[in-house]
Amino acid sequence: MMAIKLQKIRMPRVNYRMLLCAVAFSTLSTGFAIGQTIPPEPPNIVVFLVDDMGWQDTSVPFWDKKTILNERYRTPNMERLAAGGMKFTNAYATPVCTPTRISLLTGMNAAHHRVTNWTNIMRDKTTDSPDEMFHGVDWNINGFSPVKGMPKTVVATPLPALLRDEGYFTIHIGKAHWGSMGTPGASPYNAGFVVNKSGHAAGHPQNYYGEQHYGNVLGKATYHAVPGLEEYYQSDVFLTEALTREAIKSLEYPIARKQPFFLYLAHYALHTPIQGDDRFVKHYLAMGMDSIEARYASLIEGMDKSLGDVMDFLEKTDQEKNTIIIFLSDNGGLSISPPRGGVQHTHNLPLREGKGSLHEGGIRIPMLVKWPGAVKAGEVQEQYVIVEDLFPSVLEMAGISSPVVTQTVDGKSFVPFLKNPKLREQSRPVVWHYPNKWGGGKGNAINYASAIRKGKWKLIYLMQEERLELYDLEKDIGEQQNVAQAFPARTKELAEELTRLLKSRDALMPVRKANDTPVAWPSARLR
Amino acid sequence: MMAIKLQKIRMPRVNYRMLLCAVAFSTLSTGFAIGQTIPPEPPNIVVFLVDDMGWQDTSVPFWDKKTILNERYRTPNMERLAAGGMKFTNAYATPVCTPTRISLLTGMNAAHHRVTNWTNIMRDKTTDSPDEMFHGVDWNINGFSPVKGMPKTVVATPLPALLRDEGYFTIHIGKAHWGSMGTPGASPYNAGFVVNKSGHAAGHPQNYYGEQHYGNVLGKATYHAVPGLEEYYQSDVFLTEALTREAIKSLEYPIARKQPFFLYLAHYALHTPIQGDDRFVKHYLAMGMDSIEARYASLIEGMDKSLGDVMDFLEKTDQEKNTIIIFLSDNGGLSISPPRGGVQHTHNLPLREGKGSLHEGGIRIPMLVKWPGAVKAGEVQEQYVIVEDLFPSVLEMAGISSPVVTQTVDGKSFVPFLKNPKLREQSRPVVWHYPNKWGGGKGNAINYASAIRKGKWKLIYLMQEERLELYDLEKDIGEQQNVAQAFPARTKELAEELTRLLKSRDALMPVRKANDTPVAWPSARLR
Repeated sequence: MMAIKLQKIRMPRVNYRMLLCAVAFSTLSTGFAIGQTIPPEPPNIVVFLVDDMGWQDTSVPFWDKKTILNERYRTPNMERLAAGGMKFTNAYATPVCTPTRISLLTGMNAAHHRVTNWTNIMRDKTTDSPDEMFHGVDWNINGFSPVKGMPKTVVATPLPALLRDEGYFTIHIGKAHWGSMGTPGASPYNAGFVVNKSGHAAGHPQNYYGEQHYGNVLGKATYHAVPGLEEYYQSDVFLTEALTREAIKSLEYPIARKQPFFLYLAHYALHTPIQGDDRFVKHYLAMGMDSIEARYASLIEGMDKSLGDVMDFLEKTDQEKNTIIIFLSDNGGLSISPPRGGVQHTHNLPLREGKGSLHEGGIRIPMLVKWPGAVKAGEVQEQYVIVEDLFPSVLEMAGISSPVVTQTVDGKSFVPFLKNPKLREQSRPVVWHYPNKWGGGKGNAINYASAIRKGKWKLIYLMQEERLELYDLEKDIGEQQNVAQAFPARTKELAEELTRLLKSRDALMPVRKANDTPVAWPSARLR
Repeated sequence: MMAIKLQKIRMPRVNYRMLLCAVAFSTLSTGFAIGQTIPPEPPNIVVFLVDDMGWQDTSVPFWDKKTILNERYRTPNMERLAAGGMKFTNAYATPVCTPTRISLLTGMNAAHHRVTNWTNIMRDKTTDSPDEMFHGVDWNINGFSPVKGMPKTVVATPLPALLRDEGYFTIHIGKAHWGSMGTPGASPYNAGFVVNKSGHAAGHPQNYYGEQHYGNVLGKATYHAVPGLEEYYQSDVFLTEALTREAIKSLEYPIARKQPFFLYLAHYALHTPIQGDDRFVKHYLAMGMDSIEARYASLIEGMDKSLGDVMDFLEKTDQEKNTIIIFLSDNGGLSISPPRGGVQHTHNLPLREGKGSLHEGGIRIPMLVKWPGAVKAGEVQEQYVIVEDLFPSVLEMAGISSPVVTQTVDGKSFVPFLKNPKLREQSRPVVWHYPNKWGGGKGNAINYASAIRKGKWKLIYLMQEERLELYDLEKDIGEQQNVAQAFPARTKELAEELTRLLKSRDALMPVRKANDTPVAWPSARLR
């Protein structure tokens, strides 16, 4: 009822083809021929980013067999997306939120952009938990900045600004979490979005319920109260639904104008607080599920409905064929109990551990890409990719071949892998670096760790013990068997490559309180 | 430092002229001639709306002589605007905020749209103060709605949506105050703005200071805390300045794309809380002014700097010649002490009373219009106009000749008066209707009053006493002499016209608690 109807537009619409006609026409006298080939319209691009969604938090099987979790969760629209596009079974993010989001925004690896932990809402305040062994590293605690001069920020040219300047109508909906309040990174507008709804410095919602104003209740509101949704107050519109409606409303404008759009729809779901979406929770409770886990499942299903609503809208408005949808999560599923129900470190099985860890459970994410005309439907791609790859990939999709950026981009376009499901590049190293202490819980490779994957091999460097662990992900996706001793040459090779990459990216290493010396580089710990 | 630089644009720009070329080109085969006349580009339009600014709160003299207030306040940029355009000395709004804003949005007179008082932040709650004599009238307490189905709202086609659908990039900055939380009118996006920054359901700011997060301080925030300005927290950026920077940043996009824009920059200043703008307050304190009034003067000067910054930006970006600027206030100056300093009902002299009253001090507003090429510089227009006239005027300026709207528009375009400073229309009646009780203070014609102006004559109908007062504004701008008895025929004529217009607009009249009968129509009180 609340959406503005698409109105009849009377002005000549801004249209890519018309524009190109105009260019051809206006250059007639300079020798351009009428009737020359008109390039295809640039595709619309949707990045559908889910928060804290684990690799198994879906009915789409991302492993080679269906798991209990795949059976439990209901995500018919993810199934629909997977059926229409490509499923990446080895897609990675960083172990926590902000580093992933800034990698996506800048194309930089976390070791390089140095926003290695999630940013505080308040400026100049670290989020590292105090530690007995290490001093805190001097990471960019204020996050991303589009301009120089703000202390402790990474300055870079953000992806949405590049798209905007090439003609895209860039829309930000939902969670931003790129920079602290009191810095330019707090506002998605400064990252190149033409429109921002509900994005600010916060990393999670105070409350998912319209009845509770998404947290904006007098005397109770924190800085995590979700802004910009006043019209839904006192209603039963769940946060995920409100953001979806706002996303769809925002799409009407560029569609009516025939302007290509970039929609970055970053749901606050599934992040804590784990509150039930009343539209879906009953089903899971009726199954006899743990009440927390039933609420969690309802957050997943509500997110999936949002995906379906966006897809339906694109079909209804004839945009489906020219719209790329990239679905992903920002890190592995949270697997600390509480706040999760059940037994901790079981929520991402077969993967080990969860959010915060450099084990697969913390970094491997569900990822789907639908690109009609370019990517065959129903394909699976096993090549590993990492979140900074989205930056060059999206630019390539948009036809932007030589973007002018201030940063060195670490990501590599995965477009070739989209076009050829059989293509592999097993020699590429991808790197994680987390010289921080997460407040979220304990486990192996949670806090103070680096890692590298190359081919089927994954090496983890545990900074506290200055110890290396090697896993063969092909045989041992659950990382149960450390084979560093059995494969010393491989261990050495990866430790040296990790060291080289960390050094070349100016990675920060924690300093021991005991002797004020930094943690050794991984290669220094080889026997 | 925080503004994104205008970047080099590499895509063929969207350009009106090019588009028209494109149309001509694409229709070559259907008989259109190359080289046909290209219509002029539609002008950019800026509505610069100040809150609670009185007719004399400026160094620009709006009366026929300079007053002490004109000498006191410093508004060099208003002087610059007046020198470049036309000064309306008899411009009117409604006596309080929301009715004016909805009249501007819809073209409807307040008697007609029935949002006769300011809307509550909370839905379904009146803002009328309790009264011993009258029941509250059934006004549209939830404000404006773009869609049907929301109780107690006026449904209408809003001006920004019409402009947007004709190709304008519509930008909302600052105070909205069109509808309560929990209704679609709470969001400027639903009124047709492509971009909204800081507009919501609130009618005044909680705090003007960046250091105090514009009110967004944990445990202290109310619903009046200003949203969307996180990047300025912990800085010394005053609210007026922050909104100005956001406005300018938002203009970069349509300017880069050569798309016409409609900027609605609605400052929260000068509304209470009367907090000093540190950049300007010292000057007034050094003059020996009352400290509250010095702060008030600093709010004015900060607002004026904002106007200057916008004008400078338009010049710097070569937009000045194709941009119309309409400057106005939403009601007369507040003249209740406290919160104002000094003696109440003196702040708008020579006008009687202030905000809330149907005397001139409550409704006559400063208004300036600069339209290069169409309006001669430095002209003065004495024709009376009223805020609902902006709706058809702006549409005419934009070249939109037959807009499709659901409401009956009461306003009349003042474009003919802009083009001819000597044009007069003394037979036009303009009407005010305020069947409500303002919480703000006491005075004559504050609460429960209607009024009509026609030529130099103004009739006020005081509902509590069911009494008529007639004033000759030409001889008695201060409304000191009620001449109803001396001019019975004129009184009768105006009372009848007022009655006819109120009835035709379905105006609400209060009902007496004593006998449950409504207040008589003005014409019923003629002897």
